[in-house]
Amino acid sequence: TDIIKETNTDKIKTEKSYGNHHHVSKLSFISEQKGLSFDKIIGQLFETYIIAQNNKSFYLIDQHAAHEKILYEKQIAKQESDSIATQQLITPYTMQLSIKEVMFLEEHISLFKDIGFEVSVFGRDTILIREVPYISGKAVSPILLRKILDDVIDGGKGDDPLAKEKMAASVACHAAIKAGETLSMSEMRELLSQLEELKAPYTCPHGRPTIICISLYEIEKKFKRVQ
Amino acid sequence: TDIIKETNTDKIKTEKSYGNHHHVSKLSFISEQKGLSFDKIIGQLFETYIIAQNNKSFYLIDQHAAHEKILYEKQIAKQESDSIATQQLITPYTMQLSIKEVMFLEEHISLFKDIGFEVSVFGRDTILIREVPYISGKAVSPILLRKILDDVIDGGKGDDPLAKEKMAASVACHAAIKAGETLSMSEMRELLSQLEELKAPYTCPHGRPTIICISLYEIEKKFKRVQ
Repeated sequence: TDIIKETNTDKIKTEKSYGNHHHVSKLSFISEQKGLSFDKIIGQLFETYIIAQNNKSFYLIDQHAAHEKILYEKQIAKQESDSIATQQLITPYTMQLSIKEVMFLEEHISLFKDIGFEVSVFGRDTILIREVPYISGKAVSPILLRKILDDVIDGGKGDDPLAKEKMAASVACHAAIKAGETLSMSEMRELLSQLEELKAPYTCPHGRPTIICISLYEIEKKFKRVQ
Repeated sequence: TDIIKETNTDKIKTEKSYGNHHHVSKLSFISEQKGLSFDKIIGQLFETYIIAQNNKSFYLIDQHAAHEKILYEKQIAKQESDSIATQQLITPYTMQLSIKEVMFLEEHISLFKDIGFEVSVFGRDTILIREVPYISGKAVSPILLRKILDDVIDGGKGDDPLAKEKMAASVACHAAIKAGETLSMSEMRELLSQLEELKAPYTCPHGRPTIICISLYEIEKKFKRVQ
């Protein structure tokens, strides 16, 4: 009965000191790692983030930002190799625009051609869309042209050195999976396997993070499983 | 062609400044909230943590620590109401112990009786276990007695004011789900619904955290979805 130490008593007392306080602490995360690879997909959080793990880390992936970057890199590669896929519309799509927009479009019609929009001007404030880009297995809606036009007019001259990247970023942004979309396990798997292949997977074309990584060690430390 | 701003250009340039740096940042988390409730279980991380969400937060739950606390609170309540469930063994289990251990056990035999072990001393270094605690729908293995004995002898006198809590903590620790055990969705659901009901769900009986909470807002800020 004399083999007595105080260790367990200390442990039990510690609990009480936690009490009902409300406290905020910090969790470190690593935002970039070489040789990104996900071993297992756990699920979708808030219908917006994909949760995955590998043997040493835990990942949150922003589904929109990640898909945007995937489409962006593909788009740039296709523009460079002149291999943009398009689909002809059975009947041309008529779109009303402002006179200024029509003038801008007319002046930079080859840029739109480069991303897959075959357009002709039809009067002062009307255009006809005859062909649209074909992205991720389907023809995009012709109304995407208006969104891209907005982005490009808003973002700078069509013929500045960044025009190609700007067009690609705009296409990627509007064609990407949105936050709030429910994804199936196989859709998540496809997305992550494409993300693993990117040259620069950690940021979207606008520079926002696509991936948050928390190491297993960090989680274990936070739960006091390790010191 | 003159409606030109610099915003998009800035966004695209930002990407380049991220480059290939390897940087570590911090993620805040809230460790305690009133009215804990999980709306949805997403999955199991590293076969050790359960991932859940509700409409404003994201949770990591240490499956062992959480189950330990659930069993601990139940155990305390049962000890207080004298309603410990036990199961008689068909044939008594014979266990070899050191002479000191047998002396300790003999001196505190009622403490072991209180948690469900019916024991009689059978010679200088041998005991007979006739009845064992019945926890979470099954009789515990008689060898749990040795582990509890180790914890209690190591942790202080059997008759100190914390003895009851110490016994309960030891039972809970050894009977709880281990880290590394694969859990089914329904096992996770059961565990979390019991955790929601606890008086003090945020720490295990040894004072370690059971739950890490990261707010949706914090995640959105980290991904630059909000400012």
